[in-house]
Amino acid sequence: MFESAELGHRIKKSEYDREVPPLREALLEAQLDLAEAAAFPVIILIGGLDGAGRGATVNLLNEWMDPRHIQSHGMGEPSDEELDRPMMWRFWRALPPKGKIGVFLGSWYTWPILNRVRGVTKEADLEQSLERAKRLEKMLVDEGALVIKFWLHLSKEKQEKRLKKLEKNPLTQWQVTDRDWKHFKAYDKFHEVHENVIRHTSTAEAPWLIVEGEDANYRNLTVGRVLLKAIRDRLELAKTPPPKILAPPLLPAIDNLHLLKTLDMAQALDKDRFKVKLKKYQGRLNTLTRDPKFKYMSVIVVFEGNDAAGKGGNIRRITGALDARSYQVIPIAAPTEEERAQPYLWRFWRQLPRKGRVTVFDRSWYGRVLVERVEGFCAEADWMRAYGEINEFEAQMVRHRLLVVKFWLAITKDEQLRRFEERQATGFKRFKITDEDWRNRDKWELYEQAVCDMIDRTSTHLAPWTLVEANNKNFARIKVLKTLGDRIEAKLEELHASGIDYLDKPKKGR
Amino acid sequence: MFESAELGHRIKKSEYDREVPPLREALLEAQLDLAEAAAFPVIILIGGLDGAGRGATVNLLNEWMDPRHIQSHGMGEPSDEELDRPMMWRFWRALPPKGKIGVFLGSWYTWPILNRVRGVTKEADLEQSLERAKRLEKMLVDEGALVIKFWLHLSKEKQEKRLKKLEKNPLTQWQVTDRDWKHFKAYDKFHEVHENVIRHTSTAEAPWLIVEGEDANYRNLTVGRVLLKAIRDRLELAKTPPPKILAPPLLPAIDNLHLLKTLDMAQALDKDRFKVKLKKYQGRLNTLTRDPKFKYMSVIVVFEGNDAAGKGGNIRRITGALDARSYQVIPIAAPTEEERAQPYLWRFWRQLPRKGRVTVFDRSWYGRVLVERVEGFCAEADWMRAYGEINEFEAQMVRHRLLVVKFWLAITKDEQLRRFEERQATGFKRFKITDEDWRNRDKWELYEQAVCDMIDRTSTHLAPWTLVEANNKNFARIKVLKTLGDRIEAKLEELHASGIDYLDKPKKGR
Repeated sequence: MFESAELGHRIKKSEYDREVPPLREALLEAQLDLAEAAAFPVIILIGGLDGAGRGATVNLLNEWMDPRHIQSHGMGEPSDEELDRPMMWRFWRALPPKGKIGVFLGSWYTWPILNRVRGVTKEADLEQSLERAKRLEKMLVDEGALVIKFWLHLSKEKQEKRLKKLEKNPLTQWQVTDRDWKHFKAYDKFHEVHENVIRHTSTAEAPWLIVEGEDANYRNLTVGRVLLKAIRDRLELAKTPPPKILAPPLLPAIDNLHLLKTLDMAQALDKDRFKVKLKKYQGRLNTLTRDPKFKYMSVIVVFEGNDAAGKGGNIRRITGALDARSYQVIPIAAPTEEERAQPYLWRFWRQLPRKGRVTVFDRSWYGRVLVERVEGFCAEADWMRAYGEINEFEAQMVRHRLLVVKFWLAITKDEQLRRFEERQATGFKRFKITDEDWRNRDKWELYEQAVCDMIDRTSTHLAPWTLVEANNKNFARIKVLKTLGDRIEAKLEELHASGIDYLDKPKKGR
Repeated sequence: MFESAELGHRIKKSEYDREVPPLREALLEAQLDLAEAAAFPVIILIGGLDGAGRGATVNLLNEWMDPRHIQSHGMGEPSDEELDRPMMWRFWRALPPKGKIGVFLGSWYTWPILNRVRGVTKEADLEQSLERAKRLEKMLVDEGALVIKFWLHLSKEKQEKRLKKLEKNPLTQWQVTDRDWKHFKAYDKFHEVHENVIRHTSTAEAPWLIVEGEDANYRNLTVGRVLLKAIRDRLELAKTPPPKILAPPLLPAIDNLHLLKTLDMAQALDKDRFKVKLKKYQGRLNTLTRDPKFKYMSVIVVFEGNDAAGKGGNIRRITGALDARSYQVIPIAAPTEEERAQPYLWRFWRQLPRKGRVTVFDRSWYGRVLVERVEGFCAEADWMRAYGEINEFEAQMVRHRLLVVKFWLAITKDEQLRRFEERQATGFKRFKITDEDWRNRDKWELYEQAVCDMIDRTSTHLAPWTLVEANNKNFARIKVLKTLGDRIEAKLEELHASGIDYLDKPKKGR
């Protein structure tokens, strides 16, 4: 795997001095075109061995490129902010937007490799981490990103020589730590794990590019030329339309029976019983969030539903029961410019709460498979792959003790009409109804199909959907409060049973 | 996940009787067009619960479709022939060629699911199996196949009812076995594992299509309509060119130094020393293959090399040492018509030996990243993904105790010229040299680059490449014989240490 990177590659100083100026100029031009097109981000991973010039490569890129359009991220020990979220959160928050370059020194490979070499994890754990990494990179590429993965390599002999040389020079000796020598002693073990990583994650869309790290001239010129060609090729390709999907189609059920039709929409609750139950379930919810184990979990509540199904009212009944410092409501509208420059899940990743908190999403990432699907805002291939991406996203939350509670508020077409008309007749409610609401109504059946597909493909035992019959507001609100309470209670019982008494530590299984 | 498949979907007899005749006609027409275009194969997996109509669906397809272009495969307990090879072998041998439909009752999901439910394997093992399944399906789709995965579902209540009903009828009671009732008792466990499987393997390119299995009319019409639309859509799409690759490019090393240039091509061996060593290493090879543990392994020897590098001579020195019943030499030329109708790895899968045998490939699956790359017989995207596919292929062999020994026979450009001229001058050797050989010679540098990329990307500790300096034939032959002997010896030592005393059983970890 590393054969070609142990040959002693070398570029003479005279040649280097001749080649660098035109290369830098070309790189700056490409970077400018990249920024102007703003069609895709460039994500560069710098992996490899200690002493193989990873840090120097990052410095080089920062030196050569226009600093306004490149940002580098040294991913060392995670902060407590980061430990509170799923492992991938720190990378999501650092992703470059379209038109920019992000350089990652240390990546989603760093901890899985270290944990495997140290024997903290097993071969199967490593393989799971690598599959997660592959899924992330595939998603990034599917979202249009150019992902370039450099692996800087040294033979065992060269690594030793290099560390000794760095140590001898007073100007560079700070770069060599005890950790480096400890890693050097484990060279063979690292070598085996590295080979495994490269073999598993050199995909057609984002292969590892192995570069011999010893000679700085060779390394720098190689990295620069690959980067230049990759950006130029990709700018060219970005002009052509994306490929069509090859999958068999999702068809509506041929008997026209679907999930939403089976709901008993007549269910209701009178005012008196509602008041009693509201008090009861709000009280329980409040008590649950004060449980001593609640600080080791967090809660994500997702509200989706027909227009005018009563999302706002339901959310207020939840937040009314909570300490104002412990929750956040995130209303999801059309994405901002900043958000449009990122993969569609980015704006949800950034909102994930710390432990001990509740975050309520008023609409959510499911927009991808609802409005974006129905209105044709994304291609079929994009929403088809979104089911898997969303399941992966939620699985990462659940693995990290974020409880995911999802509600679909369903009303009938007649009830929606009644509410629309009521809103238009009532002065202070008129702002809530727009032309778009009326247009969406015309696509009622298409939305129904999208909702049923969404539930079939994303209701999992990790993160099930709850369908709420919402023609009667009282009934809906109690069902939501009770369900949410039940789910939190079950999770707390699990945490009590496991005796958990820590927040997350950087080492184990991350 | 199964919500929509527990609603009691149903199609009335009158409607069914009306709908079926035109559907069947349309299906037959589509099938004919599929066969005529011969552009892609259709692979249908029928998964799901006992009693949900899996067998009936296979029968239905056989009844409705033209039997000349469809073949179904009931994948029950593997045969001893199949147990002797990696798990996927039985599926590879059953893959339909382009233009045909293959229906699989039982698939690469069957054993991983059963083993997990029975507790033979862990969650991580299941996940590894699912990732392997996904890689296989992705490869099939990348190779152009239409993969349709039906999942026939029943609620717990309905499954019980259905099994009882089948048991009551004397005509169908044979269909219900003790095993079915045992599985029914484990319904909840199956449900959990099934959900996990569907969640992980519903990819954008090959999603599971969940169909409620209770009502035969509903089931049949649904399967038929999906199949029809999928084939029609795909025939339409097959007319457009495939998408281009998005990956960063593989560039030659910028200092023009590469692996092949570092070989010491002057190494040689005189005739006398050669004779002594030949006897020694051939003798050892023969002894090794008579080791009592040899019957638990098998050996794949791959020869690649420059034209006229001496593959044939080397192969004869190996086979000369072996019992004629224990080996096979597979010369790889341009693919046959049958082979061209399959994914490129198919013709190599079919040649995998049983245990206790040696198979020598004179050229191999590496043609994909050598001649096909250089001559442009496949697109960049195709040979780029081939490195990963080949590593996966070889990893499956190694996991199954097939030892993979790969030789690159290298000669210099001058030496090749000398041999070409010698061949043309010698009557009985003239047939060995063609215009194509001279043309290949013009692309010497492109081939060198392809060889170096191949070695960098497919030389793994599981299946390393050995570079053989072959300007001197004697030297090369001894290096090959010695390397092969060393590798077999090491493998046998491993087998002795593990105390292996069985061939493969169907249950554990497959």
